[in-house]
Amino acid sequence: MKISHIEHLGIAVKSIEESLPYYENVLGLKCYNIEVVEDQKVKTAFLKVGEVKLELLEPTSPESTVAKFIEKNNGRGGIHHLAFAVEDGVANALAEASDKGIQLIDKAPRKGAENLNIAFLHPKSTQGVLTELCEK
Amino acid sequence: MKISHIEHLGIAVKSIEESLPYYENVLGLKCYNIEVVEDQKVKTAFLKVGEVKLELLEPTSPESTVAKFIEKNNGRGGIHHLAFAVEDGVANALAEASDKGIQLIDKAPRKGAENLNIAFLHPKSTQGVLTELCEK
Repeated sequence: MKISHIEHLGIAVKSIEESLPYYENVLGLKCYNIEVVEDQKVKTAFLKVGEVKLELLEPTSPESTVAKFIEKNNGRGGIHHLAFAVEDGVANALAEASDKGIQLIDKAPRKGAENLNIAFLHPKSTQGVLTELCEK
Repeated sequence: MKISHIEHLGIAVKSIEESLPYYENVLGLKCYNIEVVEDQKVKTAFLKVGEVKLELLEPTSPESTVAKFIEKNNGRGGIHHLAFAVEDGVANALAEASDKGIQLIDKAPRKGAENLNIAFLHPKSTQGVLTELCEK
């Protein structure tokens, strides 16, 4: 597959409201968008650093996979997933990954935050890193 | 502080040799350097994706903090730390972070991989994300 750059880094937080002062006042980054992704039961806050977005993920339900991540992580936030921008389309990249023995979470692209086409690869096949592929 | 971009993403792996085929053959990235950082008891492999480096970290001793990270993570690798490039110098950034109540792991810059000046902030103060500041 052809990866151009890291599209975003998903960071689980217990509360966007409590986390933003660190990102904005200490690191000096700026939040430019907050949106709820019903599908994934999260509220997301976006900040840009160079060409990469940081996507803060706050669970909106205890059923959210992000809530479970925080629970497993002793109640703390942390880096949840790594998302690459692919140039040749998510569907092609998924087909190629599957051919190479990678286990897929999403067998076909679906809509994610910011209206991107996205799909996740299973961390069992990606050396423990939950990995997302994205295209505009 | 003035952050220009994500300098690298530190990813803990049990074995660089076993992990590289995923990064190179599936994701299509290229490893351009492998070096041992005695200080941190790790072997590191570098790949570039856009402006960001992926730094695969393999522990060279069970005493390595990376070995402990893998142990806590049920024997699996995962994203270990997030490193920002600062424009105004690591020493200035540390002073500013400390003034703003951030707990520091390194009170002064030290040498890291690729001869960068680096320092770590404590994840207790950074919303659970082990955070490194770097300058060339």
